[in-house]
Amino acid sequence: AGSCREVVAAPWFNLAGFVVIMVNAVALGLETYDPVVSAAGPLLHAVEYACVLGFAAELAVRFGAHLEAPSRFFRDRWNLFDLVIVAAPLLPGVRENVTLLRLLRLARIVRTFRLFPSLRVILVGIRRSLPGLASFLLVTVLVLYGYAMLGWMMFGEAYPERFGTVGQAMLTLFLLLSLDGITDTLEAGREVTSWAVLYYVSYMVAACYLLTNLLVGLVLTALQE
Amino acid sequence: AGSCREVVAAPWFNLAGFVVIMVNAVALGLETYDPVVSAAGPLLHAVEYACVLGFAAELAVRFGAHLEAPSRFFRDRWNLFDLVIVAAPLLPGVRENVTLLRLLRLARIVRTFRLFPSLRVILVGIRRSLPGLASFLLVTVLVLYGYAMLGWMMFGEAYPERFGTVGQAMLTLFLLLSLDGITDTLEAGREVTSWAVLYYVSYMVAACYLLTNLLVGLVLTALQE
Amino acid sequence: AGSCREVVAAPWFNLAGFVVIMVNAVALGLETYDPVVSAAGPLLHAVEYACVLGFAAELAVRFGAHLEAPSRFFRDRWNLFDLVIVAAPLLPGVRENVTLLRLLRLARIVRTFRLFPSLRVILVGIRRSLPGLASFLLVTVLVLYGYAMLGWMMFGEAYPERFGTVGQAMLTLFLLLSLDGITDTLEAGREVTSWAVLYYVSYMVAACYLLTNLLVGLVLTALQE
Amino acid sequence: AGSCREVVAAPWFNLAGFVVIMVNAVALGLETYDPVVSAAGPLLHAVEYACVLGFAAELAVRFGAHLEAPSRFFRDRWNLFDLVIVAAPLLPGVRENVTLLRLLRLARIVRTFRLFPSLRVILVGIRRSLPGLASFLLVTVLVLYGYAMLGWMMFGEAYPERFGTVGQAMLTLFLLLSLDGITDTLEAGREVTSWAVLYYVSYMVAACYLLTNLLVGLVLTALQE
Ligand code: NA
Ligand code: NA
Repeated sequence: AGSCREVVAAPWFNLAGFVVIMVNAVALGLETYDPVVSAAGPLLHAVEYACVLGFAAELAVRFGAHLEAPSRFFRDRWNLFDLVIVAAPLLPGVRENVTLLRLLRLARIVRTFRLFPSLRVILVGIRRSLPGLASFLLVTVLVLYGYAMLGWMMFGEAYPERFGTVGQAMLTLFLLLSLDGITDTLEAGREVTSWAVLYYVSYMVAACYLLTNLLVGLVLTALQE
Repeated sequence: AGSCREVVAAPWFNLAGFVVIMVNAVALGLETYDPVVSAAGPLLHAVEYACVLGFAAELAVRFGAHLEAPSRFFRDRWNLFDLVIVAAPLLPGVRENVTLLRLLRLARIVRTFRLFPSLRVILVGIRRSLPGLASFLLVTVLVLYGYAMLGWMMFGEAYPERFGTVGQAMLTLFLLLSLDGITDTLEAGREVTSWAVLYYVSYMVAACYLLTNLLVGLVLTALQE
Repeated sequence: AGSCREVVAAPWFNLAGFVVIMVNAVALGLETYDPVVSAAGPLLHAVEYACVLGFAAELAVRFGAHLEAPSRFFRDRWNLFDLVIVAAPLLPGVRENVTLLRLLRLARIVRTFRLFPSLRVILVGIRRSLPGLASFLLVTVLVLYGYAMLGWMMFGEAYPERFGTVGQAMLTLFLLLSLDGITDTLEAGREVTSWAVLYYVSYMVAACYLLTNLLVGLVLTALQE
Repeated sequence: AGSCREVVAAPWFNLAGFVVIMVNAVALGLETYDPVVSAAGPLLHAVEYACVLGFAAELAVRFGAHLEAPSRFFRDRWNLFDLVIVAAPLLPGVRENVTLLRLLRLARIVRTFRLFPSLRVILVGIRRSLPGLASFLLVTVLVLYGYAMLGWMMFGEAYPERFGTVGQAMLTLFLLLSLDGITDTLEAGREVTSWAVLYYVSYMVAACYLLTNLLVGLVLTALQE
């Protein structure tokens, strides 16, 4: 257990873990190239097996470091995450499901956050900034919902594929936040009613104002930390 | 009156009000889904009646809290807003107008701002930041107007649907702030006159400069608070 | 001269000047609506004459305030600007040129900056922020020029209307800063050479990085004032 | 050597260098205009030769200033850069390659950064801000890679030209950061699977959140300097 603890604390341990993640990611990526698969398919499979062994070995060493008090090992959520990722492909029902297996292999990339403390800082920062933005997000959702109901009342019959239901209208308005195709959208709206100009222009102003405020809120939150 | 005041001050009172608003909003949204209406139309109507009763009850309790000095009740603008929203659907002329009734039900969502003090802070912040931005907004309108007049003089005859009047030209230029389709617009302008390049490029620079300054102004205003 | 000075200093003087500018602007705008012109053309002309008289009267009062030392009157650039705007329409050669007359009337809107001190502050702020941004603007022009030359070498023959000359290529790349139609542009470029991916992706990153830095520079400049 | 050092330190030396760069750049640009080449081709060639002589003379003077300790001359990377740019066109293999020669002439514009200390400050600033952004860039690449793998699994067969391989998918998603054509892209995705809505909407939110944080990081880094 002592030697395991030494290994976990060594700087090369995290580095080795990162190398395995990268090799796993590259192998996963190469499998999307048909010529590579047909030329070196068995090699990719071997690499994939080696990566799984690497992940299992890392997990075993980490468990070994907590051998005297195993319950502590399971208290760290990252260890549970690793355990699921390593063990799940062995379960029947998962083993045969190509999509699930691929998702599990893709999820291994998330382990990068475990190994780099600077990345964990980012995750913590994102989690901390969310409550400060909650009010603005609620306002944004209310504005989207209000405009979606108005849009359904005005354009629901003329453009059912865009404003047919309040959910579809909210999606349309959310995509309109990108201002992509705003000219054509307004043109199409004007053919139904001339209120469309007021509707879209006020939406543009309100949405941009809210988004800018969200951005300013983010800057201020970050400055205060 | 005393017990009413206690109820209004209780934390569950605002929470119950928020639940009623959300139920009302969800019912309103579900009415835009035809299958839901044909399957559970009467249920939605019942929910809608229950919400109205909920709003009326909330208003009555609030009125009860001010029973000793009713004039104070009417001095709070939110109470007047609630009264209009609850009473208006009963008026003849409104009662039969489906659009007006829907708008009134939609307006109930605005009541969320009453219940969440943190949202009211946002409203106050928006109201306070406006005068500081007034100068920049005036400059923006002047720039839009000047470019709209120039655009009408240059492209009014060639593109009447875009620059036919100064109002239409201002709308076109406002939409161009999104930079959506700028390449095609400039291409179309060059077919009329080669001044179009100078016109659109200078507009892009001026507009972006102004918008950036508006953003900076917003950030500074927020920082100083 | 003394009474003129009193009038110039009075608060209603600037307000009256602003009202004349607004009336002039509205009349100018209404002339772009054909139905208004055919219904109330003579009235618009009368309003226009009244505005010119108003501008001339304002200028005369300002001149009167400096009657004892007229050279000081001409030292203020705004007075010279006003003089040109009022006197130019009387000159032969200008009098008959509809376009020039309209531009002169449009230029009167610029006078708003004279009357509102808060707007003059913005002009001063813009002038002051420019030297601080000069370095970044030079870098931006260099980047645009470098990419334009590369673009001409790669796509000059395949897309002469976009990259036919270095000037046209700079315009194309400037418009691409809006990211409008970037997907189609890159697709078209890949048909010529697969270097296009590296070319456009690196341009996007470089341009966005530069623009962001320009924005940050603006914020910092404004913060330091 | 002493007089050379005096010349290098003189303010007109940098200015003359800048003029040569500008003349070289303008000549290079004019060569992209066919009418200019056919009218004044020999003149452009003469200007080009004069510029090369100018660069060589500048380099010789700089070398002369270090005549007593030539190794110091070669320790400055800018001197090596200049040497390559002046000497390379004389090498066989380069001399005949029109593209390489043009790239070398274009590279001379980079020399501007040597002559303007304020521009060198920008380069230093960019270099210094990069490590602070490294973590966020790594997160951005991870997010792009994860979404690219998911995109390949969902749309790889339906849209091989957009999601056929993980590399192509990453390019598609990178271009989507510009939000250009997001509506059509989502529409196309929905025809394959209704998961597309969740996929694209979550990508938009994640990407915008990351980009905003990168921007905030930039602002903070700049503020702390
Ligand atoms: Na767009
Ligand atoms: Na766009």
